[in-house]
Amino acid sequence: MVIVMGPGATREHIDALVDLVTSAGGEAYVTRGVSRTIIGLVGDVRQFETLDLRAMPGVSDVLRISVPYKLVSSENQPGRSTVSVGGVPIGGDNMTVIAGPCAVETPDQTLESAHMARAAGASLLRGGAYKPRTSPYAFQGLGETGLKILADVRAETGLPIVTEVVDAADVDLVAGYADMLQIGTRNMQNFALLQAAGEAGRPVLLKRGMNATIEEWLMAAEYIAQRGNLDIVLCERGIRTFEKATRNTLDISAVPVAQSLSHLPVIVDPSHSGGKRELVLPLSRSAIAVGADGVIVDVHPTPETALCDGPQALVGEDIPQLAEAAATLSPLVGRTLTAAPEPVGAGV
Amino acid sequence: MVIVMGPGATREHIDALVDLVTSAGGEAYVTRGVSRTIIGLVGDVRQFETLDLRAMPGVSDVLRISVPYKLVSSENQPGRSTVSVGGVPIGGDNMTVIAGPCAVETPDQTLESAHMARAAGASLLRGGAYKPRTSPYAFQGLGETGLKILADVRAETGLPIVTEVVDAADVDLVAGYADMLQIGTRNMQNFALLQAAGEAGRPVLLKRGMNATIEEWLMAAEYIAQRGNLDIVLCERGIRTFEKATRNTLDISAVPVAQSLSHLPVIVDPSHSGGKRELVLPLSRSAIAVGADGVIVDVHPTPETALCDGPQALVGEDIPQLAEAAATLSPLVGRTLTAAPEPVGAGV
Amino acid sequence: MVIVMGPGATREHIDALVDLVTSAGGEAYVTRGVSRTIIGLVGDVRQFETLDLRAMPGVSDVLRISVPYKLVSSENQPGRSTVSVGGVPIGGDNMTVIAGPCAVETPDQTLESAHMARAAGASLLRGGAYKPRTSPYAFQGLGETGLKILADVRAETGLPIVTEVVDAADVDLVAGYADMLQIGTRNMQNFALLQAAGEAGRPVLLKRGMNATIEEWLMAAEYIAQRGNLDIVLCERGIRTFEKATRNTLDISAVPVAQSLSHLPVIVDPSHSGGKRELVLPLSRSAIAVGADGVIVDVHPTPETALCDGPQALVGEDIPQLAEAAATLSPLVGRTLTAAPEPVGAGV
Amino acid sequence: MVIVMGPGATREHIDALVDLVTSAGGEAYVTRGVSRTIIGLVGDVRQFETLDLRAMPGVSDVLRISVPYKLVSSENQPGRSTVSVGGVPIGGDNMTVIAGPCAVETPDQTLESAHMARAAGASLLRGGAYKPRTSPYAFQGLGETGLKILADVRAETGLPIVTEVVDAADVDLVAGYADMLQIGTRNMQNFALLQAAGEAGRPVLLKRGMNATIEEWLMAAEYIAQRGNLDIVLCERGIRTFEKATRNTLDISAVPVAQSLSHLPVIVDPSHSGGKRELVLPLSRSAIAVGADGVIVDVHPTPETALCDGPQALVGEDIPQLAEAAATLSPLVGRTLTAAPEPVGAGV
Repeated sequence: MVIVMGPGATREHIDALVDLVTSAGGEAYVTRGVSRTIIGLVGDVRQFETLDLRAMPGVSDVLRISVPYKLVSSENQPGRSTVSVGGVPIGGDNMTVIAGPCAVETPDQTLESAHMARAAGASLLRGGAYKPRTSPYAFQGLGETGLKILADVRAETGLPIVTEVVDAADVDLVAGYADMLQIGTRNMQNFALLQAAGEAGRPVLLKRGMNATIEEWLMAAEYIAQRGNLDIVLCERGIRTFEKATRNTLDISAVPVAQSLSHLPVIVDPSHSGGKRELVLPLSRSAIAVGADGVIVDVHPTPETALCDGPQALVGEDIPQLAEAAATLSPLVGRTLTAAPEPVGAGV
Repeated sequence: MVIVMGPGATREHIDALVDLVTSAGGEAYVTRGVSRTIIGLVGDVRQFETLDLRAMPGVSDVLRISVPYKLVSSENQPGRSTVSVGGVPIGGDNMTVIAGPCAVETPDQTLESAHMARAAGASLLRGGAYKPRTSPYAFQGLGETGLKILADVRAETGLPIVTEVVDAADVDLVAGYADMLQIGTRNMQNFALLQAAGEAGRPVLLKRGMNATIEEWLMAAEYIAQRGNLDIVLCERGIRTFEKATRNTLDISAVPVAQSLSHLPVIVDPSHSGGKRELVLPLSRSAIAVGADGVIVDVHPTPETALCDGPQALVGEDIPQLAEAAATLSPLVGRTLTAAPEPVGAGV
Repeated sequence: MVIVMGPGATREHIDALVDLVTSAGGEAYVTRGVSRTIIGLVGDVRQFETLDLRAMPGVSDVLRISVPYKLVSSENQPGRSTVSVGGVPIGGDNMTVIAGPCAVETPDQTLESAHMARAAGASLLRGGAYKPRTSPYAFQGLGETGLKILADVRAETGLPIVTEVVDAADVDLVAGYADMLQIGTRNMQNFALLQAAGEAGRPVLLKRGMNATIEEWLMAAEYIAQRGNLDIVLCERGIRTFEKATRNTLDISAVPVAQSLSHLPVIVDPSHSGGKRELVLPLSRSAIAVGADGVIVDVHPTPETALCDGPQALVGEDIPQLAEAAATLSPLVGRTLTAAPEPVGAGV
Repeated sequence: MVIVMGPGATREHIDALVDLVTSAGGEAYVTRGVSRTIIGLVGDVRQFETLDLRAMPGVSDVLRISVPYKLVSSENQPGRSTVSVGGVPIGGDNMTVIAGPCAVETPDQTLESAHMARAAGASLLRGGAYKPRTSPYAFQGLGETGLKILADVRAETGLPIVTEVVDAADVDLVAGYADMLQIGTRNMQNFALLQAAGEAGRPVLLKRGMNATIEEWLMAAEYIAQRGNLDIVLCERGIRTFEKATRNTLDISAVPVAQSLSHLPVIVDPSHSGGKRELVLPLSRSAIAVGADGVIVDVHPTPETALCDGPQALVGEDIPQLAEAAATLSPLVGRTLTAAPEPVGAGV
């Protein structure tokens, strides 16, 4: 940590800071420049942060130098993590496709979507039973009924389930059905939810807040990790910018950046970032090529009647094209497309 | 609602849309332009939204024309609302100042802050017992202990309490102490929390999400209103932009814009938007002059030891200056500074 | 300047940096922390910048500590500047209103607008003869014909002229007519234009780029100052954000921030930031209250036929309201509304 | 074009609009909805735009439906364009790599960079002789001396030259040396420069403004096209967002979006968007996979002494890796890597 003094800082200001840091158990090294003096701090950063150094007289700025997260940092675990979701790996040398409907609507629609997901190269099934919607007048999801549908479809298809939870009070219920809990973009800083998810004994898919910096995203992951759960997969899903031609702006650079800062796997959601069907395949290819650990895409048998986000769901010819892109691109970036588990009894 | 057809739309595409709208109980009027055809829809917009018109063949765009919120819209209530918080009005011709510490730390610090708040012209006391913090390693608030401190300080000073709630599970507990529930910027789209707050029987201070459009902010208010609670005050607190010289960018224009779209009062938080003490007074003046219904500011007796956001807390000479600014500027925009209630027994 | 070494930096990396800095005539002070080492540099920052320290092995980050501009910095001139435009002051304790049509269209329209400007409290006339337009199909201005109209109106009304120049090649021509050269938001980093304006012998109104940080804005001013012209007035006119309810987001905080970083006067353009007539008066009040040195607003006798930006032009009852707001609010922030010069011969 | 009337619009307001549109030679079709009336306009949109319909009484909004550009629109030319740069194609089924130093510094550095460019798979050489720099104290380029160096290197290596021009006054000079004129991000709306480039008889590489919408980018291209030059290549180079982990946020989705709106080729600059060497290869792969028509990357023989943007220049092992990525990924998206021309006399 470095304290930058203002041009008008006095010797007394500097001495007061050195005393404060020393009394907190740290060491302070003063460098007097031509126009500014800087003070380098050595010791426990978190302790310094409680000192509110920025409010001391003469201080112009306080620069944090080490990262504010620990458990999820690549500094604390050099190798890259692999997270197992119902036996399906995400991370390492794998390229994992997750697919399914935005929302669970009916058993048939969900089952049909699961078959589409598998055909698209997916080894995990996504589908929302609890939907956070901007409008209170929009479809809010089937709740536990939807979870039961997902469980039935898993039994039939063998695909483990990724599904969203939106309230800390629901975490245990959802964890009773799901193989992986998804925390959505609007809840990335719902700290009660993060903590509950950290204790639920399930891997967590943590979407980046649409307005969150990469650092804040990793801090949110740290909330989960702190509760003892390091089975976290990060998901870039687009950020909010001035550009309105797409629903959000996919921050493709966030994939390599987050992978360098953290050991956690990082996947991409091309469906919610682009918001348009015709962008999903190019963005999926882009995500695989940039080195993402996976993609999560919306599919729907009849997008024109979907209760949620139909315009971005893949359908028809899109499905084999996604499978082919995943299969052919993955080896070029040193990865192998994860195979889907067989249904129980499939081999009998 | 208007459907814009693409350049390649056929007669069959248009007929299919007219049929779909008609079968949903609406009316469709077709206008053929030189390069595009548009279809104007008459009927219940929310019903049309379930049709997913955007996914129909030939459609290029679907333009919503009426606003997606109803209860909080100025179209549905022409006059401006006044919300009463423990007897203190916000809205109408009032200019209401809310002040207090960012976080409740100790009884003394809270009481002293309350005296500062009153001296600054405030008629309501703010103070956080539950703090949503970006870092899991930062001070998270005193919880119910903090609420009890606030209640004690209210008893002594007469100032009603505004305090934040961060989890739907805590709403009833917090509502048992607070005169007004605050929903913070990170929770603006925590829909479970919004709904719980809508049923708690307390006025709600709804901060704008730092990445939320004004429309999304009003939709969030609609979630509260839908549960029967129209005692909502909107709070502009800065949005996230590329500019990093301030903590956030105060969107001062959002005040008149939100006041024209909604009948709800709109106040401004100059402390959290600017993030620096020296900006709080100029931004407070700016907020009053633009026509805000109030301001909410941080004060602290010893900012340099504050556990949260010390650098932005007003102190010392700032206090009478805020009081004077509020008193002298308010009449120039047709408002009267709200008087603080006397402590119970004060008149005896 | 501070160099932050990465966690894997070796002793050799550090020694190489110390040698490099020393050989460039600077001094380097090394502070070894628990997880990181930092190196504080003392000497000429601009020289260090040519070293590309960031590319040296082991370096994680390089933090600049002093500001990158000099002539326009408040560190180099403690008092606040006053700029004289044809005898009318901007800065100091003055509140200066500039008003006029967005574009010069006809002699009558310009003269009538000038009378409106004076009635609105303005002491300077704005009006564009060269218009940078997003669309090549939009009205691009009258060019020199427009400049002559402005000069005629100045002769009749006594109001000095502020007008835009969009190409370095036109600077001398425009400076032959104008009392102040305006550089628009799209040209804030047109460095050839900045340099030409710096040599033209006229004060310059430098609008902030809609995507420019405050620091970049001051760097652009430094380009002008470097050519010997310190008669620069900064103009905040809104930045581009995700919010689309207004044309741009007026960054009201930029006024006190820029005033603290630089000695140059800072004014606000509420017309182009809001983009809507009904926002201009509230935003003007807000600008005066925040402490701006002036405002620049669009007026037009018949906005519905304006060739440019009619929807944001003040008209009718807006005019006396702006004058009243400027007259009554200015004293509350320690300023006096600048009086308009009389026409030549007016006293005869 | 569609006019949306406000809730309080009267019959007279509507009649006045119909009359106005009719008198301008258009047709107006009125649809009365439950809460709003809309008016569909048929005729020449550009004529309607001069009417300032938005300023008419009763009008709430005016929605443009067709795109505001014509010559560069995919509606006006269905097939995709191929632009020839000194015989090297960009567009069609080609994947074209452009590489070279950010700035031309010396003959040796430029020649060495050209050899690196060829080894990286490039068929065109980039290099700046005129550098627009945020700071007036930074290296501004060698000017015509730099152009001569580029021409010498072209003679020796056979690689056609892409170089930036920053002032309309320099266009003819630069066009005398360059095979393609580059217009940089800060000049995307320097309309004088766009028009001069449109008349220079050279293909133009138009970088997207870091704050420009895709629509504004295409409008800027339209300025060039209007002067008779349709040999334009669009270059996405990152936009400015709140995220500061990268220099800019590469808007990878802009590639397929711009390709669907316009027939012009679209390439990507991964060096200036990411701003860090380690991001250039992943982002290049991402750009090729998303379907870009090319990439433009910085290379430098000794990045640690580069006068401009050294930290993002490829060097050493990066070079063959880029070549391999371009060669192996291109076929997967239906493209062929463009071969570099041989030096004149190479075959002798």
